[in-house]
Amino acid sequence: MSFVDALQCGNYTRDDILFCQRSGVEVLTVTTSFWEDASETMDRIGKWNRFERENSDILRIVRNVSDFSLAKERGQVCVILGAQNSSPYLDRIDFVELFAQMGLLVVQVTYNNQNALGGSCYEPNDSGLSRFGREVIEEMSRCGVVADLSHVGDRTSQDVIDCSPGPVAITHSNPYSVFAHPRNKPDSVLKSLAERDGVLGLAAYNNISGPYCSDVERWCEMVCRAVDLMGVEHVGIGTDLSPNRSPDAREWMRKGRWTRGSHPGATLPDAPKPPESWFTDVSSFRDVEAELKRIGRFSEDEIANILGNNWLRLYNAVLS
Amino acid sequence: MSFVDALQCGNYTRDDILFCQRSGVEVLTVTTSFWEDASETMDRIGKWNRFERENSDILRIVRNVSDFSLAKERGQVCVILGAQNSSPYLDRIDFVELFAQMGLLVVQVTYNNQNALGGSCYEPNDSGLSRFGREVIEEMSRCGVVADLSHVGDRTSQDVIDCSPGPVAITHSNPYSVFAHPRNKPDSVLKSLAERDGVLGLAAYNNISGPYCSDVERWCEMVCRAVDLMGVEHVGIGTDLSPNRSPDAREWMRKGRWTRGSHPGATLPDAPKPPESWFTDVSSFRDVEAELKRIGRFSEDEIANILGNNWLRLYNAVLS
Repeated sequence: MSFVDALQCGNYTRDDILFCQRSGVEVLTVTTSFWEDASETMDRIGKWNRFERENSDILRIVRNVSDFSLAKERGQVCVILGAQNSSPYLDRIDFVELFAQMGLLVVQVTYNNQNALGGSCYEPNDSGLSRFGREVIEEMSRCGVVADLSHVGDRTSQDVIDCSPGPVAITHSNPYSVFAHPRNKPDSVLKSLAERDGVLGLAAYNNISGPYCSDVERWCEMVCRAVDLMGVEHVGIGTDLSPNRSPDAREWMRKGRWTRGSHPGATLPDAPKPPESWFTDVSSFRDVEAELKRIGRFSEDEIANILGNNWLRLYNAVLS
Repeated sequence: MSFVDALQCGNYTRDDILFCQRSGVEVLTVTTSFWEDASETMDRIGKWNRFERENSDILRIVRNVSDFSLAKERGQVCVILGAQNSSPYLDRIDFVELFAQMGLLVVQVTYNNQNALGGSCYEPNDSGLSRFGREVIEEMSRCGVVADLSHVGDRTSQDVIDCSPGPVAITHSNPYSVFAHPRNKPDSVLKSLAERDGVLGLAAYNNISGPYCSDVERWCEMVCRAVDLMGVEHVGIGTDLSPNRSPDAREWMRKGRWTRGSHPGATLPDAPKPPESWFTDVSSFRDVEAELKRIGRFSEDEIANILGNNWLRLYNAVLS
């Protein structure tokens, strides 16, 4: 069984990659950038390239689809370089291709703030996809880059799904109908995503999962409800785990350079304190596998799809 | 016979590429940057990528050595993306690899001004290669990027030749012993370059060629004198032609953002006005071929080496 974690945002050591390997995680999409511009993102990619050279026995950065099979042969964990914002593009259409050449293959249309492409899930009003945003989505498709809608506003998300030539992704969100949170997606968006062969990565982040992250039974209940909505071919996992994240990095994620005030991230001001998540590292993938088997609803193949193969299908479709 | 022009800095139209094709120029190294930083250089590379897509029947950007043979099969002109400064690297060692992934495969260590890597040919004192400069040269070699010394100071040039793991290039200069100009190179540097299997591209720029650019006979006399110094395996052509260069672009080349004063470029204050160059476009490659044959000194193979094969050997050695 190939486990794929479609979104993490940690600061990795060799031990973290070894832990992925032992836990059966074969593909891991990581975050290079939240607010970083082109050069700053290149710094992050450069750091990943060095990390790959120093750990090439266990790690392979995905630059094209053949890397998936090469990594499997060699027992390497595949890392896909992603960004949670289109800030690396500096609002230049040509940068989509150039960053793809550098290996940046999953890019979120917006992070927590509106940008030149469209609206975020936290803005009071969502403009929908701008004219420039539409050009970027088409260019991402041409260049083999996955568009991610996790932090994107609902209207912009729907526009992206409608205009993208290929399938798009929501790498780390949950259904709003399961847990009401601005980071989660309405059924209409999720159904459209599935119709266009996209994939939703269910998150293990307690702020956006609430009680569904308290134990494996509740979390797999959320899996079942997502499958009810979208079909078993369109549900995967994107944990949103952040190994070794420092307090400074958390501050940067939330505030970047855009505010001198505070930003709560996904902690809503009036929300009850969510339970601690049980899914605190990737070893929980095996718990999910066991629980999905115990439930008895899914075939072995369907469980493999949820735990990784749906993402592999999407990556192979878009990156090719 | 494959003609290679190892340095131009124009602003190209489809007609220019067609003219290269008709003139037998199979490989052309162009200038994306003089003073441009990372993002600005990416703008230039992006523009080249678009130009390639719009003219893919006649043009191929070289991204690895297999592109040379693919282009030959298809009758495409190969363009190698180069920079006349290391400014795109923003003094970051990791950017060497990232720009190589974007296709920037020939990079001059300094342009007209000293930078963090070393000294330029126009500075009153040349520091030699800095510690950072040494790291960049080693990284360029690891990443398959040609180091160009044309505008680099003599001491820094010698240091680069001495420390580079592979051959390096002087893409567009002449021997100082043939024509005394700060842009030209002393015999000691040229001999060291040849000993490490590097190549000198003789320039067709009248400011640094003086009387040797007045007609094909004089220019081929310079070829013979360079061969006397370096051997026939180490002399090539780098015209320094600039098709469609605007006055603004010329101002930018000379002054960038570093001075509010004037900079004469290669026009020395006390130099007599040089004769107009006869080598005003790449059709003169055929004149050089004819003249080298007429002289009777060189075999057919040796002429082919001078007109292109020496560069192809160097590109294949470094880019692989």
